[in-house]
Amino acid sequence: MYFLTFRFNNEEKIGILNSSKTGVIIIDEVFKKLNKTIPDSLHSLILDSSDNTLINDIKKCIELHRFDSISLDNIKLCPPISYPNRVFGVGKNYVKHIKEIGVLGGNIGEQPIFFSKIADPAIGDGDFINIHSSVTEKVDYEAELAVVIGKDGSNIKREEVENYIFGYTIANDISSRDLQAKHVQWFKGKNLDTFCSIGPYIVYKDLIPIPVELNISSKVNGELRQNSNTKNMLFDISHIISTLSQGFTLKAGDIIMTGTPEGTGVGFDPPKFLKSGDKIECTIEKIGTLTNFAK
Amino acid sequence: MYFLTFRFNNEEKIGILNSSKTGVIIIDEVFKKLNKTIPDSLHSLILDSSDNTLINDIKKCIELHRFDSISLDNIKLCPPISYPNRVFGVGKNYVKHIKEIGVLGGNIGEQPIFFSKIADPAIGDGDFINIHSSVTEKVDYEAELAVVIGKDGSNIKREEVENYIFGYTIANDISSRDLQAKHVQWFKGKNLDTFCSIGPYIVYKDLIPIPVELNISSKVNGELRQNSNTKNMLFDISHIISTLSQGFTLKAGDIIMTGTPEGTGVGFDPPKFLKSGDKIECTIEKIGTLTNFAK
Repeated sequence: MYFLTFRFNNEEKIGILNSSKTGVIIIDEVFKKLNKTIPDSLHSLILDSSDNTLINDIKKCIELHRFDSISLDNIKLCPPISYPNRVFGVGKNYVKHIKEIGVLGGNIGEQPIFFSKIADPAIGDGDFINIHSSVTEKVDYEAELAVVIGKDGSNIKREEVENYIFGYTIANDISSRDLQAKHVQWFKGKNLDTFCSIGPYIVYKDLIPIPVELNISSKVNGELRQNSNTKNMLFDISHIISTLSQGFTLKAGDIIMTGTPEGTGVGFDPPKFLKSGDKIECTIEKIGTLTNFAK
Repeated sequence: MYFLTFRFNNEEKIGILNSSKTGVIIIDEVFKKLNKTIPDSLHSLILDSSDNTLINDIKKCIELHRFDSISLDNIKLCPPISYPNRVFGVGKNYVKHIKEIGVLGGNIGEQPIFFSKIADPAIGDGDFINIHSSVTEKVDYEAELAVVIGKDGSNIKREEVENYIFGYTIANDISSRDLQAKHVQWFKGKNLDTFCSIGPYIVYKDLIPIPVELNISSKVNGELRQNSNTKNMLFDISHIISTLSQGFTLKAGDIIMTGTPEGTGVGFDPPKFLKSGDKIECTIEKIGTLTNFAK
């Protein structure tokens, strides 16, 4: 199932893509049939889904009944979760990307590098990225597979990681290269307003079993920039989540961006940083395309 | 005024220290007199205080009426804000501390170094710090002045910073030195569960005008470890807040830890990392003492 948050008739709703992926079933109708309280956000739905029962009920209900769907043309997509509890990033997780960002430290790490993204709020499909030209001159895109945590846990064993996952989405981990370098720790360069884009959908985990091997790419104004596969991650999803959770409680609704492959703007000679008017598309097989516009 | 959050009769309450600092006035009584809705947390009160009117009303009300106070002996202090919206840290902000942590990069930066702390929840005065001995062997204390933001703002000018501050508290920015090094970016080492301690009080800004020059110290089991003054910061509060807010919206309730002076455990030869049973006290002039116990 593909979960999404959208605006329709000036109301924010949660929905599920119909089987042809041309329209969206409003989740209110499904929950009414299930005789359950309608969740007020996708985050709430995730909190209620820790044991998979609710998801199975929703799936059966949709198979059983013929729900109306609204055409995707008639809705405005929102970030699947506008105010995620926490968003974590993983740095330097594709070997060829580590080489292209040499100036930021080209060595391959023995352990994943974690940092945090502020999504307060996140932006979603179709939204504008503010390139903050008065603050930075080197804004870059980073297409990434993002994991959405489905259940609280710490010290999670590698082999148990999938139990703690709700699903997957696409992230654009927008980054200011000059601020990353100037402030030494990456936090400032990773966190200007609008720098955390996620969406368009959260795909429930049963469609994407571990090991996750999906083509991942990005285009700027139609030009292919990144083109890799998530199997090329230096540290895989199980390693990332298991390591991050050591001594640290991950919580349902947390989002973990798993790093970006080569082909970011900083890797070109001369570099290709974002400029006002650029259209940036991040695509991951089985999930979809997340489109943003630089402003 | 000294604002605090505490438990009394199994209920969490917001309070204000009485003038002798021996007891606490429950804020419910003050808000009843003011004929205002009682805030459900100190965070809510801060959100309602952006223009200082509410704070002035509270102050006048307390001066006018004789409110009962509960002895501090009969309450359990909580973190002033248990679930802060966001907590930001500043690294390497006292020159002598930069020298003692040489292994983590002893150079003096041209701009503040920012990272984030997860406080989900924060711990408060009297609470235990989990030293996570299965995950790290080098847990360290860092006494810091923390600024509480009082009003949303971005691109804040240096000379306007004080308008965006609500007040000040003490933080212990607990840090795992081995994880900081192992994961390159500091996020993992700064963010094990219980690693963000704040309190005991948030002191409203009128008691601590800019420039903030306060003695700051820490003791472990009574032994003086850190002993400096916030005037020794490399980047002062105005610089920190102005810089962090460039292209980034700070929000009321955000907490910014402003860095720690020399005397942390890693600076001793041999190092003095925390061990189970240690009592750690962080003291800042005009604010108080924040005490935690390693477990």
